[in-house]
Amino acid sequence: MNIHELIRDLREPARTKIVLLVADGLGGLPLKPGGKTELETAARPNLDACAREGAIGLSTPVLPGITPGSGPGHLALFGYDPLEYRIGRGVLEALGINFPVGAKDVAIRGNFCTLGPDGKITDRRAGRPTTERCIEVVNKLRTIKVPGVEVFVEPVKEHRFVLVFRADGLGGQVNDTDPQMVGAVPLKAEGADPASAKTAAVANEFIAKTQEVLKNEKDANGCTLRGFATYPNIITFADLYGLKPAAIAVYPMYKGLARLVGMDILDAGQTLADQVATLKRVWNDYDFFFLHYKYTDSTGEDGNFPEKVKKIEQFDAAIPEIRALKPDVLIVTGDHSTPSKMKSHSWHPVPTLIVADTARTDDATEFSERTCLHGGLGQFQAVHLMLLAMAHAGRLGKYGA
Amino acid sequence: MNIHELIRDLREPARTKIVLLVADGLGGLPLKPGGKTELETAARPNLDACAREGAIGLSTPVLPGITPGSGPGHLALFGYDPLEYRIGRGVLEALGINFPVGAKDVAIRGNFCTLGPDGKITDRRAGRPTTERCIEVVNKLRTIKVPGVEVFVEPVKEHRFVLVFRADGLGGQVNDTDPQMVGAVPLKAEGADPASAKTAAVANEFIAKTQEVLKNEKDANGCTLRGFATYPNIITFADLYGLKPAAIAVYPMYKGLARLVGMDILDAGQTLADQVATLKRVWNDYDFFFLHYKYTDSTGEDGNFPEKVKKIEQFDAAIPEIRALKPDVLIVTGDHSTPSKMKSHSWHPVPTLIVADTARTDDATEFSERTCLHGGLGQFQAVHLMLLAMAHAGRLGKYGA
Repeated sequence: MNIHELIRDLREPARTKIVLLVADGLGGLPLKPGGKTELETAARPNLDACAREGAIGLSTPVLPGITPGSGPGHLALFGYDPLEYRIGRGVLEALGINFPVGAKDVAIRGNFCTLGPDGKITDRRAGRPTTERCIEVVNKLRTIKVPGVEVFVEPVKEHRFVLVFRADGLGGQVNDTDPQMVGAVPLKAEGADPASAKTAAVANEFIAKTQEVLKNEKDANGCTLRGFATYPNIITFADLYGLKPAAIAVYPMYKGLARLVGMDILDAGQTLADQVATLKRVWNDYDFFFLHYKYTDSTGEDGNFPEKVKKIEQFDAAIPEIRALKPDVLIVTGDHSTPSKMKSHSWHPVPTLIVADTARTDDATEFSERTCLHGGLGQFQAVHLMLLAMAHAGRLGKYGA
Repeated sequence: MNIHELIRDLREPARTKIVLLVADGLGGLPLKPGGKTELETAARPNLDACAREGAIGLSTPVLPGITPGSGPGHLALFGYDPLEYRIGRGVLEALGINFPVGAKDVAIRGNFCTLGPDGKITDRRAGRPTTERCIEVVNKLRTIKVPGVEVFVEPVKEHRFVLVFRADGLGGQVNDTDPQMVGAVPLKAEGADPASAKTAAVANEFIAKTQEVLKNEKDANGCTLRGFATYPNIITFADLYGLKPAAIAVYPMYKGLARLVGMDILDAGQTLADQVATLKRVWNDYDFFFLHYKYTDSTGEDGNFPEKVKKIEQFDAAIPEIRALKPDVLIVTGDHSTPSKMKSHSWHPVPTLIVADTARTDDATEFSERTCLHGGLGQFQAVHLMLLAMAHAGRLGKYGA
């Protein structure tokens, strides 16, 4: 019996509310051996209070040593095994620009490129156009029609765009047409099965028409397509947990990931204060709230240790207002670590806390990587976090008699 | 290679003895954040001595957040993955009244109900008869014969009874006949496959005959059947581990669970003192002893914190006499937690200790939820406990060269 079957068997209705606060890239590293991490450096009176009242631990997003992207990191937090539920690159790119990908879609990452008179690629990024120029060229591609298929073209930035084909019976097993080198002609799209062959035929027709539409462009006179992906067949949060979930995220990628599991995507404004105001406004309308805080990750990616500390302190300051709503279960975690020292996502386990009436309090008086190591939640797999959330919310019945 | 194959490959004969003491529902919760659990409150000089000499840790019965019933909880301790080995409700009910279910049996939970003149249910519990009355009506059902099948009817209590059909080729995939509402007629039994269709035919014939036999009863003039279950096909303890196991349990449910894995069920008397006396008496006849102590669970279920503390202290007091037998491996654990605060089983990890000559002693000086969190066994899956038992008993050889 797999975990999702188990949850569907055991879940029970309740009036309890769960708040999942994701501070993106929360975990960090000390800059020097024996030093303090960003979280350990930050003043965090409110997170420490949570640690005293609840249970803390470290969550492993995928497996030890595996650094997750935002997609797998969030899927695990939502309770979907990231090694089983894989989201294709094209779909992730589309989610990242807030394009509402659907069940009949194949989403593809497009790159503008420069083609020589012989059709060979002379620049794989079309001279890195500005994003304004990208939008201009995308508008020309939007004139292209392919019979029997709805075609959507959306700018991303510089030479990158998203292409979506919408029709019944399209497959996603299509090779990249980017030959990954200059001096070669783009590859022909081919499908690995009949449904994907249909997609490949559409793609080849689209590419042929781009060369017509773009023939007078100097730099961006061709394109390559990568990461063909169908929309993943994922059971919704409502069907899996019996929860009515809301996502309160500022950035499109996280709205997209939440939409993927069927959460309602709320207008969250632009700041953490806006997000908390949204949470308060809709408090009576939902029973699960995913609130995503971006800046612990982006400052880590920038390698800006003191700024990440500051962003953690701003996040900490929002906790009392959230706790004042009296959620039955409050979880604070991250989708992965983003140590400033590494300027990137990392595989290090993520500090996590659960405050609930049924939490078995440990001896923790602070919320940090070091204290989480000795916390009552131990080191656990992120994909099991929702089991704990549901249990503490009184929403999981007994397994067996 | 699954764990059972591994054990059968690696196991080696030895003259060592293993004692598994299960204090049912051992784990608890503090009544207030930062307070002490039942185990932490109890005076437990003998368990603390074990903790100093051995290794301690926390065992997760099924998965984080999953609250096990007694069946899954014990199967895990015995080394059978509770998500793989599932015991049907009918079999569990039969085990609970100490009925010796066998390989050819389908066991079913029966409810007496009241039927109106139109055959519709007017009371799903037949007015909750006394248990004496239940026995009286069961005796009438015992007159029913179904050709080709042995039929057993056993009282449970109030409106509940156990029905067992014994014959070759009976299946267990049969729907409940209880429509779960009054004002409806009981459902017809139907089988999902040919073997289960055979069972369903027997069940329908049995039900028809009950209406004849019970036609003069006022309240209990009908019955519904639920939880049809065949005896699970489980490898025995002897075949799996090469151990000769004895169960020393007072309550029928735990005797039944032990019988399920092929343990010898000993006459254990009524008290812990009786159980320890039994253990001493048969010490030379077996090499594995499962001793089940019920009252840490029942007091937790009652929500009686001080009484659970007292029952832990009584359990602690029995430890020296058991250790005097010098088992090579002594394990103390629970099948799940039963916090008085929750008045129910829970998912919280269970304090566990192993005393053996090969235990890697940790820094623990006490046996409690908090100290187990930092113990040498870490947080581990209950289903792996028997691997540790076998290893410490010198009964598992090297894997690979």
